[in-house]
Parts: sequence; C-alpha cells; structure tokens
Amino acid sequence: MAQQLVDRRDLDFVLWEQLDCEGEILKKYDAYKEFNKKTCDMILNEAKALAVKELLPTMQEGDRQGVRYENNEVKVPDSFHRPHELLLEGEWQNLGVEPEMGGQGAPAFISSATAEMFMAASWACYSYATMGNGTSDMIEKYGTQEQKDLYIPKITTGEWGGTMLLTEPDAGTDVGALTTTAVKNDDGTYSLTGNKIFITNGEHDLCENIIHPVLARIEGDPAGTKGISIFIVPKYFVNPDGSLGDRNDILCTGVEHKHGIKASATCQMSMGSKGKCIGFLLGKEREGMKVMFNMMNGARMATGLQALAYASASYLDALNYARDRIQGRSIDDMANHGAPPVAIINHPDVRRNLLWMKSYVCGFRSFFQYSSMLATKAAMAEDEEERKLNNGLYELMTPLIKAYLSDLGYEVCVQGIQVYGGVGFCQDFLAEQYARDCKITSIYEGTSGIQSMDLLGRKLGMEKGKVFMAFMGEVGKTIAKAKGQEALKGLAEDLEAALNRLGETAMHLGKTAVSPDFKAAFAHSLPFLYVMGDVIMAWMLLWRASVAVEKLAGKVKKKDEAFYTGQVKTAEFFIQSLLPITHGKMNAIFNTCKAAIEMPDDGYGI
Amino acid sequence: MAQQLVDRRDLDFVLWEQLDCEGEILKKYDAYKEFNKKTCDMILNEAKALAVKELLPTMQEGDRQGVRYENNEVKVPDSFHRPHELLLEGEWQNLGVEPEMGGQGAPAFISSATAEMFMAASWACYSYATMGNGTSDMIEKYGTQEQKDLYIPKITTGEWGGTMLLTEPDAGTDVGALTTTAVKNDDGTYSLTGNKIFITNGEHDLCENIIHPVLARIEGDPAGTKGISIFIVPKYFVNPDGSLGDRNDILCTGVEHKHGIKASATCQMSMGSKGKCIGFLLGKEREGMKVMFNMMNGARMATGLQALAYASASYLDALNYARDRIQGRSIDDMANHGAPPVAIINHPDVRRNLLWMKSYVCGFRSFFQYSSMLATKAAMAEDEEERKLNNGLYELMTPLIKAYLSDLGYEVCVQGIQVYGGVGFCQDFLAEQYARDCKITSIYEGTSGIQSMDLLGRKLGMEKGKVFMAFMGEVGKTIAKAKGQEALKGLAEDLEAALNRLGETAMHLGKTAVSPDFKAAFAHSLPFLYVMGDVIMAWMLLWRASVAVEKLAGKVKKKDEAFYTGQVKTAEFFIQSLLPITHGKMNAIFNTCKAAIEMPDDGYGI
Repeated sequence: MAQQLVDRRDLDFVLWEQLDCEGEILKKYDAYKEFNKKTCDMILNEAKALAVKELLPTMQEGDRQGVRYENNEVKVPDSFHRPHELLLEGEWQNLGVEPEMGGQGAPAFISSATAEMFMAASWACYSYATMGNGTSDMIEKYGTQEQKDLYIPKITTGEWGGTMLLTEPDAGTDVGALTTTAVKNDDGTYSLTGNKIFITNGEHDLCENIIHPVLARIEGDPAGTKGISIFIVPKYFVNPDGSLGDRNDILCTGVEHKHGIKASATCQMSMGSKGKCIGFLLGKEREGMKVMFNMMNGARMATGLQALAYASASYLDALNYARDRIQGRSIDDMANHGAPPVAIINHPDVRRNLLWMKSYVCGFRSFFQYSSMLATKAAMAEDEEERKLNNGLYELMTPLIKAYLSDLGYEVCVQGIQVYGGVGFCQDFLAEQYARDCKITSIYEGTSGIQSMDLLGRKLGMEKGKVFMAFMGEVGKTIAKAKGQEALKGLAEDLEAALNRLGETAMHLGKTAVSPDFKAAFAHSLPFLYVMGDVIMAWMLLWRASVAVEKLAGKVKKKDEAFYTGQVKTAEFFIQSLLPITHGKMNAIFNTCKAAIEMPDDGYGI
Repeated sequence: MAQQLVDRRDLDFVLWEQLDCEGEILKKYDAYKEFNKKTCDMILNEAKALAVKELLPTMQEGDRQGVRYENNEVKVPDSFHRPHELLLEGEWQNLGVEPEMGGQGAPAFISSATAEMFMAASWACYSYATMGNGTSDMIEKYGTQEQKDLYIPKITTGEWGGTMLLTEPDAGTDVGALTTTAVKNDDGTYSLTGNKIFITNGEHDLCENIIHPVLARIEGDPAGTKGISIFIVPKYFVNPDGSLGDRNDILCTGVEHKHGIKASATCQMSMGSKGKCIGFLLGKEREGMKVMFNMMNGARMATGLQALAYASASYLDALNYARDRIQGRSIDDMANHGAPPVAIINHPDVRRNLLWMKSYVCGFRSFFQYSSMLATKAAMAEDEEERKLNNGLYELMTPLIKAYLSDLGYEVCVQGIQVYGGVGFCQDFLAEQYARDCKITSIYEGTSGIQSMDLLGRKLGMEKGKVFMAFMGEVGKTIAKAKGQEALKGLAEDLEAALNRLGETAMHLGKTAVSPDFKAAFAHSLPFLYVMGDVIMAWMLLWRASVAVEKLAGKVKKKDEAFYTGQVKTAEFFIQSLLPITHGKMNAIFNTCKAAIEMPDDGYGI
C-alpha cells in the first residue's frame, strides 16, 4: 500500500486543466520565463520522490521522539537531520523566493504544490527549512541595505533560520498588550527585555544561527498596537564580513508539550535576562504591526496549505485502506450468509464517508491554488485595476483559506480515523497523528474566531462591498458556463440559489454588525465564514465538473474517464448532499439568535 | 479554579425537576424502597468528592505513564492503585448491581449519575473496577447455578475483573467471520484456540483473577454468526470452594499504543498457545450471539455516558477558563484603545462557542437519563403494554445514545480546545486529552456507521413503525405543553415543524431502504441518525425550558433565576441557531443523492 500524500493526477488537473496556470501565469508573466510546463512537471516529480522517500519516514518517528529541551538548547528528532540537508541541497526551501533574494523565483503555484507534498510528508521537518522566508521577506521589504546584505543570503540558503516573536503569556490574540520593552542605546541599537511564548522553531540544532524578528515597545511609546516596533534579534551577532560573532542574550527557556506537531519546537523565549539582549530596529519606530502584518497573509495561507496537506494525506490513506481491508458481506448479499466478505469501500456508509472527505480535499486544493493565483496576479499585474481586483479578492479569501481549510481539514482527518475503525485509533497508522497535528491549524496565526471577525468586520466591507460583489461575479461565471452544460444545469442552478442567498446573508449580517444588535452579529461571524466557505467549495467543485464534462465530451482514456466522472460525482455529492445544509445554516444566521448575548453569565453553569 | 466534572445543579435539575425520578421511580417501584431522595443526594455528594479528590488526579498522570506491557503482564499506571481500592471499599462498582448478585440495587439513574462523575474524573481507572459487571450479568442470565455461585460474588466485590473477547484481526464489525475454535472434551469442557484483539482490560494488575467471556466456534458448527458459542474462560481456574487454581492457557501478547485512553489496557489475547486453554460453555451451544447481545445495549449506553462525561468536563473546564482568562477589549469598547481588557467570556464568539457546548451537554444528559429511565421502567413494569412500550423506546434510543453522544460529544471536546486557544493545544490542561480520549467512543462497541444501520435497518421498522410513532408522540407531549407557555410558543412550533419533517424523512428513507435504491438509503443512514439526534436535543432542551418557565413563574432565588433563564436561553439557541441546519440536513436526505453509490471506484482517486 504505497503512501501517496498528494494525488498527482488531481494536482495536475487543478494546475493545468482547471486554472490553466500555463496560459494564465507561465506564458503571461516575463518573470517566469525560465519555467514551462515541462520544468514544472519535473519539479513536482522530484518533490514527490523526496517527500515520500526521505521526509515521510520521519513523520511518525518525529512524533514519538519529539523535541528535547535541555539547558536552553533544543534537539530536533534525530531522523530530521538527513532530510533537512537534502531539502537544502535541493534548494527546496527557496524555490519560490525571488531571484533578487537568492531564490529560484518559481511561481507560487509550483512552490506551494511542492510545499503541500513536503507538509503532508513531515510538516515539522519541512518547517525548519522554510520558516526563515517570512523573516527575510520582512527584511527585504523594510530593512536597510546593510540588513539585507547581512541576513537575507544565509536565510535563503537555509543556513540560518527565522522566526516571529509575537505572542506573550498575556498578549496572544491581543498583541497590543505586550510588555516586552526596548531601550535605545547610544549606538542606535536597542536593549530588549521580555518573555515570549509559542515561538515556532525558536531554538533548534539544525541551523548555525537564527534570526528573530521581535515585537516590542520602545520605552515611552504609547500603549496598544500603535506603540509597537519590530526588531531584528539574531541568536548570534553577525560580523560585517558575514561571520558569526558573540551569542546574543536571547534564550530558549522551555518547550511546550503538545497535542500534535510534537516534532516542532514551540519555544518559550527570554530576552535580556543578563541585560544584554541587543536588537536592531527593522523599519521605523512604532511601525512594528505594519511590518509584521506583511508576513501575516503568507502565514495564514501557509496554515491553510498545511491543513490541506494533512487532509489530503489522510484521505488517500483512508482510501487505500478501504480498498484493501476485507470485512463484511456486500449489502447486495445481505441475505446470503455464505457470501464472501468484500473490501469495505463497497459499503455505502464507507463510500459516503470517503466521498465526503474527497469533496473537501478537492475543494480545498482548487480554492488554495485559485487564491494563490490571485496573489501572483496581484503582484505581477501591470494594470492598476487588475492589481486592485486581484489583491482585493486575495485579501477577501485569506481568512477563509486560514479558517475554513483548518476547521474542515481537521474534520476530514477525523473522518480518516473513522474509516479505519479500531485501528484508526491506534498509532500504527498515521490517521490519528494527522488529526492531532492538524488541530493546531485552527489555532495559530489567529484562531478561526479571529479570522471570522476579520472577514465580517473588515473584509466584507472592503471598498464598500465591491470586492465581495466581485467575488460573487467570479462565482457567477462558473455558474453561467455550467448552466450551458446539460449534465450540470441542475447543479448550477442549485449553486446559483445558494450564492444569491449568501449575498443576502452577507448583506443582513453586515447591516446587523453596524446596528444596536452588533454583538449578535459578531456571535455569527464564524457561522458566516463557514457558509461562505461552503459556497466556495461548491463553486470549486462545479468548476472542476464543468472542465470534466468538456473533457468527457471528447475522446478520453479509460483511466481519465473514471477521473473526470469522479469530478462530476463529487460536485453532485457536495451540491445535493451538503449545500442544502448550507441553506439551513444561512437560515439560522438570518434568525440572528441573541441567546448567546442575552445569556446571564451565571446561566452558563456553576 | 476548582475542577467540577459535572454540574451538580444541572444534574439535580434533570433527575428531580425534569424527569421527576422521585415520583416516577423511587416512590413507584418497591425494589427501590431503600432509596429516597435524601439517600440519593448523599450518594451523589460522596461520589463527587471521591471523583474530584481521588480519581481526577490520576487522569493526566495515567495518560502520560500509560499501561506497561512486559512478558504477558500488564501494569496499570501507578496512581491507579489507591483510587481503585477506594472505589472497591465504597462498593461504587456494584452500586447499581442487583441485590441478588450481591450488589446494592440502586436505581440506574443514581448509579449512572455517579458513573458520569467517575468517568469524567478518570474513565480508565473507573473502568477497571466496573467492567466485570457485564460479565456477571451474562452469567446471571445464562449461567448454571454452579457458574453463578463460582463467579458472580467475587466479580461483584470487584476482586475479580471481567472482559468480553469478541474482536479478532479479521473479524471486527463482521463478528461472524471469527476463527477462534472450541473442541469439546470428554469432561464437558472445551479446548479453545485463537487470537483476539482490542480486549479492554484483558490483562492488568488490579485484580487477582479475570473472567473472560469468549466468542468461539465449536468445531463443525456452521459459518457465520449462527455457529458462534460463548465460553467462560477464567484467567485462573476457580476451585469449587472459590479458591484459585491453576493458570489457564490464555495470555496477553501485547497492548495497543493509542490516540487516547492510554491508561486503559487494550490487549491482544492468545488462547491455546500451549494447547491447554479450557473454557466452560455459557448458555447453549450456538447461542453465543444471543448471550453476548445481552450486554450490548448496556455497553452502548455506557459508551454514550462516557462521551457525555468527557463533554461535560470539557465544557466546565472551558467555561472556567473563559471566566478567568483576561484578553482583549470588550466589543463595546473597540474604539477606545485605553479600555481595560476583559475576561474572554465577554467576547461574542466565545459566548456562542460556550453556549453551543452547553446546549449539547445539557441535551446529552437529559437524553441519557431519559433513556436510562426507559430501561428501568421496562424492567420494572408489571403491565405488559407498559413494559413493551418502554422497552421498544429504549431499543430505539440505544443506537442514538451510542452514536450521537459519541460523535457530538467529541465535537464538544474539540470546541473545548478552541475556547482555550493556544494553551488548549498544550498538555498542561486536560482539554486536549478529553478530545483524544473521547474519540474512542465513536469507534468501539460498534462504530457510528454501524449504529446508524441498526437504526435504519432494524429500529425504525420495529413493530411496523409503532415504536417510532410512540417516540413522535412522546415529543409531541412536550410540544403541546410548551405551546401553552407564552415564552415558549414559538420554539414549540419550530420543534413541531422539525418533528413532522423528521417523520416524513423517516418514512422516505424507510421506503427507499426497501426499494431498488436501497444502497443510496444506507449511504444516508448516519445523516439520518444525526437529524433524529438533533430533534431529540431540541426536544430535551424545550422540555427543560418548559420546566424552567414554570419555576420562573413562582418565587425563585437569584441564583436559581440565572439557572432557569439559562435553560430558556439554551433552548432558544439550539432551536433558533441549530435546528434550521437540521432542516437543511433533512432536505439533503430527501435528495437521497446517489453519487456515493454511482461513483466509479477509480474515480475516488489514485
């Protein structure tokens, strides 16, 4: 039973058939002239081979051994060292990094497709190699030339790692409450004092140096987010010639023991315990939030991708198991006690469960790559209107990618356990680990609740609702096309009804959010995010089906016939079995029940 | 922050105010004449004290240490020994066991209420003390007088444990495929050979002897379930005087490493490796399934109770945390950057999340105790019609208690993690363990999928649908009463609409299940179980609200006012926010999408 991680046929379908990344990106933008479909195919082949052969074997072992903390140092699982070296040798960590920063400049659709494979194989291992990219992005955008020259090259080669020191014990979601302070020194540097928690890869033994961006408040600066600045705090100071100098006064004081991603070092960090933690201002004073938010969209997209990776791997594992596991008679032979047992994929309940999982995995992948394409187009567009449109849609999609893929991706992993039955609860298979690891994605980089407030409070109203209307228009295009396809007409009409109702729901909730009942509106922000995500899933699956129907009208190989028919059936399943539930959820949002707001605090219980 | 495990006020409300267990059980049946409300209160107080003080401290420790297997022996976590002794000293394990078997004969509502507390505190620890009850029940019902005298007394005192050896590597859900064989010896005993897996508490160091009921096929008996017999296989043979004799040839050959309930020994068992495993027939030959099923309803109820216990504890922990954790400004003060941070229970998204959890926990507890009462009435009723009605309803409810409480209870535990945010993912709090432990409840004693097939394939059609109609009638009584209460009229009408639609849905699916589309029907059996469960939740919460509204009309203390208002708000929340989704689910079932059946196997993916 070969491990698959990612269904390559499905990935190819999304990139080349559904989204036409060749015409829409490769041939369109000069920046990618060194990449054609053939090179992309080769990159994906190589990535998959490395992911399956070298990273995947570390996933379970990494979970069992975990990270080990001793005397301010952190050891990663032993098995991570070799694949880490191979990732760096192959420069997989900088595949999507811009050439000006020393990277290979591949378009995001390719770098994220390889990332999906590596994440599915061993997210923790892959993250040590890649987390520095967020740090160097910030430095590239806001740093001085000296800072760029000093830090970016070695982060891009993966020799040095990067982090983001944001959260403190009493300042998690409420970043503005942080208490880490910075005092300006005579030489223009700053002395930092404070403690941070939940710092992913804050300390480990895979890199010779780690460059920490740190949020802190300069003494005397105002309270709240507007008084926050950001500093570069290297673990080892870097001499002007690039060699390493003294150790800085930033220490890991412990690691968390967690539900999942146990191989990822989640560090408690202390700065200035000896009064000698030196930081270098990045960008301007009091602009820390702006600089930090520069990496936030990327981090949220990456978190959605992580969830997709787990869900996809969990689905393929469950599918393989269901094909192999012989148990029980066919429902066709229930009356015949002598009938032979069959593979469990033949049982209707298992078939539904698998199709449920598949519909989300397919929807996620298309939605992620669609959103990634928006970002690429926003970055590449020469026309200002086109840039604005794509950027707006990308901003609108980000909280959905982050929260919807996380929450539903987790549910896919849980269903993965269920397909296995009893052995799914045992640690011999990866199913239970996918679920444990995936749970973090709903929490870090802003919980799902926070994402939903971003969606309702900021994104829906962008440009007076024009961005949301543009989104409706994009869905409308798929509907219009599918309506002209006999096999999909009914499904297209169903999606149209849901889309219209979504528009009404957004309008209703948006109005309520600025009415005296605004609290009740915000008690429905997450339910709203889910229904918008549902409609997007249906859109993506109808879009897929629409492409598949076109292909089926021509001459197709037998294997492709099953694949394309599968696309149509998946859309049918989601739109007929799940979209009616979305209508129910929208009706519930229209009720805008105030019970959670009116509930007396003591009424919740003892 | 005191650990609460179970909201005693809520439990009292269910037992004495909603279900009137005093009038309906204690004063009604002679068998319980030694129990009055006051003794019950005392029992609950003592149970809670023991659960919180002695069992709860073992929960996390038990998870970290797990069970240890070496040389066919299993050691439970060190911390389990003392609470195990205390449980036995207090005779908590036989509180609900009939006096004829040496038990204390308490009504099920009290023994299950204490069980909820012990399970919430440390299910694994409690299970070692109580699992023998299923074994002795079987022996009491089907054993010879000699077998009763030999085994039951020591199981009831907890000196000996019990198990159920059912599952084999290739015979899980499909019990009939088992390969363990029995050969009759000249002395009337049987020699058994075979291997079993997933045997809860199959071997451990808390009891001096373990009595194993074993399913096996006597040589020459027919294939499938009809050829299965059941045997008593004691770990140590028991001499006629009750003393222990030689060791039997049944060995633990390993334990599973699991996602949760790590402190519970899930054993692989080997019988006859030395050719000397002796079993004693229980009941008649080839009646093994009948004897085994005798304990199945009880096991399924206990599994639902286990899920309720985790969900309840997880909810109360999350509630306490939300009241204590200060983070972020109030949404009322969003514009005022100087406003002080507030407890997170003030944030609308957290309030909704908590009320979502509470609505299920309350619904579960009422539903469980209602079903338990049905069993009591069925056992006690002198009138045959009354017995039949209550027994039918109990049979109908069993798959729902098992699957709905498991699956939704797990979701409650997952939401518990989410309320905590980042620390919920860490092992310092119990939230993540509740989720891991709870996952097993959806799997063992028959997966949720199996329960749904039992519901659709057997229970809905019992007595030509009369039992289901009787259930509809019971819900109707609550609706009729609530319609007469001004505050609840609208909610009652909403529930009535959902109930009627549920009736139509059951009719539709029942017909489809015997049509040529029967496979599509069975692809919707679990969705149907969920909607029936949803309607039951709404019923239970409206029932609660109806009682609360009556109380609020009289003179109530301030604390009770919040409690009763909480009941009304909880019903409002569920019926206005969640029941519309149930309508959507029912609409989806009416679509009876065939995609999962028509999907080509290769269309699922590579």
